[in-house]
Amino acid sequence: MTSGRSSLPLEVQKLIIAFSSLPGIGPKTAQRLSYFVLSQNKDDTLKLSEALREVKENLDFCKTCCFITNDKNSDYCGYCSEKDATQICVVENVIDAITIEMSSIHKGAFHVLHGAISPMNGIGPEKLKIEELIKRLNNGETKEIIIATNPTLEGEATGMYLSKIISDNFQNIKLTKLARGLASGTDLEYSDFNTLSNAFENRTSMD
Amino acid sequence: MTSGRSSLPLEVQKLIIAFSSLPGIGPKTAQRLSYFVLSQNKDDTLKLSEALREVKENLDFCKTCCFITNDKNSDYCGYCSEKDATQICVVENVIDAITIEMSSIHKGAFHVLHGAISPMNGIGPEKLKIEELIKRLNNGETKEIIIATNPTLEGEATGMYLSKIISDNFQNIKLTKLARGLASGTDLEYSDFNTLSNAFENRTSMD
Repeated sequence: MTSGRSSLPLEVQKLIIAFSSLPGIGPKTAQRLSYFVLSQNKDDTLKLSEALREVKENLDFCKTCCFITNDKNSDYCGYCSEKDATQICVVENVIDAITIEMSSIHKGAFHVLHGAISPMNGIGPEKLKIEELIKRLNNGETKEIIIATNPTLEGEATGMYLSKIISDNFQNIKLTKLARGLASGTDLEYSDFNTLSNAFENRTSMD
Repeated sequence: MTSGRSSLPLEVQKLIIAFSSLPGIGPKTAQRLSYFVLSQNKDDTLKLSEALREVKENLDFCKTCCFITNDKNSDYCGYCSEKDATQICVVENVIDAITIEMSSIHKGAFHVLHGAISPMNGIGPEKLKIEELIKRLNNGETKEIIIATNPTLEGEATGMYLSKIISDNFQNIKLTKLARGLASGTDLEYSDFNTLSNAFENRTSMD
């Protein structure tokens, strides 16, 4: 890995750097992927190149629910107009919304905050899509808000901040959050203190 | 993972499929990367898209050494014209050549076969860039061929095939192959039979 590096064509060097920008892909994997692309069928490589471009050029975030949309000009996306807005599930980011959407468990609408409050990283509530959520609630249609932020310090702080704002301003809206307890399929012996504590505290009747 | 899938924008579905075409990236990782791209800075995504396109559109395989080149119109690439062609290192694919090139161990030229003989997969010698190699050797400039095919069944078979052709037709060219033995940093106790056998057979004097 000495001076030889400079003799790699510039195109390959640029590809290695670009691959490294993806999560979980370190310099070694980026190299391996780039070298693979060199020998890959041209059509397959161009398909990936096009797919990346299209995602960025055709998709945007919905002005109402802040989820992804391919209708940049409308104020509402396919999700907003199709889903039952009486129940809104509030998540930190697009990935969380997709995960819940693909499980088909939640039939209502989504609201994507695009982050969580994290003073350590300089992310205050004003950087999240909370204003957009309040605007939706002002419509008066919503009956329940399900807070589905992550069970992390930042996620819990964000949930508490939201619950204060919503309960102060919208007394008629029911506020819930996803249950905390033992994750299905895990071993009790490996559960951390918070998980066990939540599992005991929220224990349910078996009658 | 039920019917909900169909409600993902087509662009995202296409991106997941395209990412899956890369080695070591399964459906779950492809999903994770695609969702990341959705929230990624637009410029970074477009850089990757462009880098992929450029690698395919600007680079080609050299007509002489079959390594990568960005000069599609010339018969010789930067490597062919710069490197010492009296010593040619023959490798299976581009990745192998880059690995050796980046180590700066080999100062001579390369010849990339673009595969190895594998009757099981229908790859005979005629599918490899052997004709191009013979053409180079006919120049009379080459004094040594270093066979650096992989130490696998296919790689060894390819090496043996090449050595027969070369020794039959070019008696003046010295033929060598990379040493087989214990890989540096490995544990002897985990070495397989072939490695140990090679290590004993090719043991070197410590005098």
